[in-house]
This record gives sequence, C-alpha cells and structure tokens, in this order.
Amino acid sequence: MTGKVYLVGAGPGDPELLTVKALRLLQTADVVLHDDLVPQEILNLIPHTALVQNVGKRCGSKTMRQEEINFLLVTLSGSGRQVLRLKSGDPLIFGRAGEELEALRRSNIAYEIVPGVTSALGAAAAAGIPLTHRQASSTLVLTGGHRASENTDPEWRNFAGADSTLVIYMPGHDYAALAAKLVTSGFAPETPCAIISRATTPRQQIHQTTISQLHHSPTLAAPTLLVVGDVVKFADRSAGQIEALIPGLENAFGTALAQTFSFSERPNQEEPLS
Amino acid sequence: MTGKVYLVGAGPGDPELLTVKALRLLQTADVVLHDDLVPQEILNLIPHTALVQNVGKRCGSKTMRQEEINFLLVTLSGSGRQVLRLKSGDPLIFGRAGEELEALRRSNIAYEIVPGVTSALGAAAAAGIPLTHRQASSTLVLTGGHRASENTDPEWRNFAGADSTLVIYMPGHDYAALAAKLVTSGFAPETPCAIISRATTPRQQIHQTTISQLHHSPTLAAPTLLVVGDVVKFADRSAGQIEALIPGLENAFGTALAQTFSFSERPNQEEPLS
Repeated sequence: MTGKVYLVGAGPGDPELLTVKALRLLQTADVVLHDDLVPQEILNLIPHTALVQNVGKRCGSKTMRQEEINFLLVTLSGSGRQVLRLKSGDPLIFGRAGEELEALRRSNIAYEIVPGVTSALGAAAAAGIPLTHRQASSTLVLTGGHRASENTDPEWRNFAGADSTLVIYMPGHDYAALAAKLVTSGFAPETPCAIISRATTPRQQIHQTTISQLHHSPTLAAPTLLVVGDVVKFADRSAGQIEALIPGLENAFGTALAQTFSFSERPNQEEPLS
Repeated sequence: MTGKVYLVGAGPGDPELLTVKALRLLQTADVVLHDDLVPQEILNLIPHTALVQNVGKRCGSKTMRQEEINFLLVTLSGSGRQVLRLKSGDPLIFGRAGEELEALRRSNIAYEIVPGVTSALGAAAAAGIPLTHRQASSTLVLTGGHRASENTDPEWRNFAGADSTLVIYMPGHDYAALAAKLVTSGFAPETPCAIISRATTPRQQIHQTTISQLHHSPTLAAPTLLVVGDVVKFADRSAGQIEALIPGLENAFGTALAQTFSFSERPNQEEPLS
C-alpha cells in the first residue's frame, strides 16, 4: 500500500464547517497529526483505530520542532500510511505548509492539499461583517499579529487608507500596543474594529469597538482575530453577546455528529455503488 | 413556518469542498438563488423539489439587478420559505453580501451566514502554492481585478514589496494591461505569478509565469485567479498541466455524490437518534 500525506484545513472551529472532503479523509486516515488549535469536537470525529498526535506548539511540556513534524510526515507516509496533517483554518495560510510541502517533495512522497475555511471567514460570518463592500472596501488583507508590539515593523503602513479590510490573526492581548501600532501605521483612531474569539464554536465571543477604544477591550480566550476597517460598521448589532450568536449552533453540532454516524455506515451500504 | 435566508459559500468548485453544513442546507432548502459561477456539479445536489434560480450576471439575456435579488430574498423568506443564497467561494468576499444583509435586517428577516472556502484557497491548493511562507510572505492580499486596466487606480501600490502575496480575483484577459499595472504599482517584472483557471474542477488549468512574461499567457477559461508573489516559486513543478492535477479528483466527485445519497437517506435511518 502506498502512503500519502493530506494537508487538510479543519476550518474555523465548528465541525460542520469542515469540508465534505476533510471529513471523509478524517474518518479514513491511519495517522492524524494536528495543530493545537483544532477543537476537541473535530478530533472526536477521528476513528479510534487511527493514531492521533498533537504536534502543536502548546503540546504538553515539550515543543515539537518543524523538522520533527516533517520527519514524522515523511517517515509515516513512507511506511505506507495515509497521514492527515490537520491544520486549523486553511492549510496554506499561516500554517508553515510551505516547509512541509518542500520536505514531502524532497522525499518524493505523494501528497494532496485540501483547502479549508480560513478563520477570518468564520469570524466574519459569526459577526455578520461583509469583508468587502462596494461602499467601504475592495480588498481584504490577512496578516499575522505575532509582531504586533514591534512598532518598528512598517508593513501595516501599506494597508491604512487603502480602501481595504485588515484581519490580524493571533493579535495577542496587548491591545494598547496593537492600537498604537495601527495609529502609527496611519489608521484613523475612530476606525471601527472587532475582536472575535473562538469563532463558530459554542464558546464564541465578539467585542466591537474602535481603534481608540481598543485598549478597554476585555481579554478574550484564544484563538482570537481582530478585524479592522469601515466594514465593521456593517456588523450585526446583536453580535456582541456570548449566547445564541449563531442561531441553531447547538443543533448544528448534533447534526454534524449524526452525519458522522451516517458516513461511518457508508462503506457497507454503498459497496454496490463503488 | 418561519422563513429564513442562508447566505452560503459554495466553495471554489469541487462539490467535495462544500462544507458539511452547506451540503446539508443545499439538500433541505425550499428555494436556491445562486450565482452564475456555481458549477453544475454542485447544482445537481439540489433536490428536484426546490425552486432554483440563477441570479448571476450572465443569466440569459437579462441581468438581474441587486435590488431585485434583495426583493426576492425578502419576499420568499417572508412567505415562510427556507431560502439559500448560494455564492461561489465565500459569501462575504466580493459577493455583495453586505447589501443583501442590509436588506434582510431592514425587513427583520432571520438569516445565517455559512462561510465557504474562498476561491484563492482552492486555487493555491490546486497549484501547491503556500500563500504565506516564513521566507517569502507574511501577508495575504485578496483583491478584485475588475479595474485592472485603469492604471490611474493606485491601490496596488500598497501591496508591492510589502512582504505579501497578492491574489487578484477575476483578473480578466488583458494580461498586458495587468502586467503594466503591476509594474507601475512597483512590482518587480521578474516576480513569479500563476494564472489558475477553474480551480478544483476537472477542467482546471494552471499557467506559471512571471509578470514580465504575463502577456504571453494563454487565455484560460473563467473563472480565473492571478497569484502574484515570491511564494509562487514554491508551487508544484508539475502543476502546469491540464490532466490529473489533483490525484483522484474523479473519484472525489463520485464520493461526493455517493455521500449525497447517504445524506438523503439519513432522515429515515436516524429518526430514533433525533
């Protein structure tokens, strides 16, 4: 049996926001190597027969280096396993997939990339924010916030006043430094923004504010995203509460699990079709 | 029965890249109003009992205005229907969802937004291009190309040399004008780029080039996307051919349809669980 690696996006959090393909692969993989941000509700969909390992940064007391993850991917698929590398959101955005792809190509390992709903889109859907708008924004910019407090980094300067929406992944909790960097980069202090925590999960929280008031924001649980731009004024007015942000979310979870059972039963039912 | 509107992303083209939730809603909607770019393979998943209307720009000889689409959404859901507004990719990116959301809120219509895999992510997965990379790009910029030939528009200037990847949706076929605008905006002529046509479908085509050679590119069928940036040098070397770009794509389609049958059978099978 020939091994293969699937680089798969797990979507923003809600198991029903997995793609049909991701769910199918999750239920047939021999090995699943996942990031720390993939929620338990999605990991629960993996059959007990699969080997599952958290290779995320916060995995226990030790941190797994990228080289070690690459080694696992190559070794396990090389021995004939179907290996699913599961990343939250989409695998090609902020996921270091480039380095994993290079390792797989160097070793002539077959692979396939399965795109996912990136977290910004889940957050925007949860908050009812149109990311582009004929009257407010023609461009969407997705960037990482890991260097948010380094005010010397000039890159955000390009995105201020550019008729665009800025989404910062992993903005951290130093909102005062973040606001200072945005203003230094040229964003108007009255620009509306929203912090969205754990979007599309039952633990989702949304806080709408402006850059000038950002430092008064509550510390919301990771993962969070910050959406900055005039489009935030088109957000749901009700989307600042914890409960019932997505009507029927609880039901959606139940349905996803029910569908999982249905998927598991498929091989027997559909043998004649294949 | 209370009506509701679901603004749903259909993903980049492959029916298996629908989310589990989008597929469930597609199979239970009373009315489906879809964009022109949603492929037939996905429309085939809609039950025959549903009313289906193409409200896209190229719908027959007449063009449906945004106000007319808003009117249909409000009227049909107001009469108690479950209305699915199906947009290719993600509903909140270049889909005029903002205007539809405003119309629904004005009329107090219940709605829910279901994010989807935006086309840029499908295209990148198909071509094996990591959209961010520690050595090449920390930011992803998604923009529309409808104004590509208007060289007076300065907005792309912000994204040149900004350590970012630029993805242009609907770049059109005037590649010479597009290349000229990119260079005028500050992009180096040797910057690698890729045109990806009908990504994630069996008709997918990929053409890798550079900005300076862009005008020699073949005219590929719509919908196309242009990816510009150093990350394109990390693309699959084999991803320039028409056939077999995604291993097992034919099988994937078959599986998606098989799952559809499975989904259809669910209500009876799982009655005791609900």
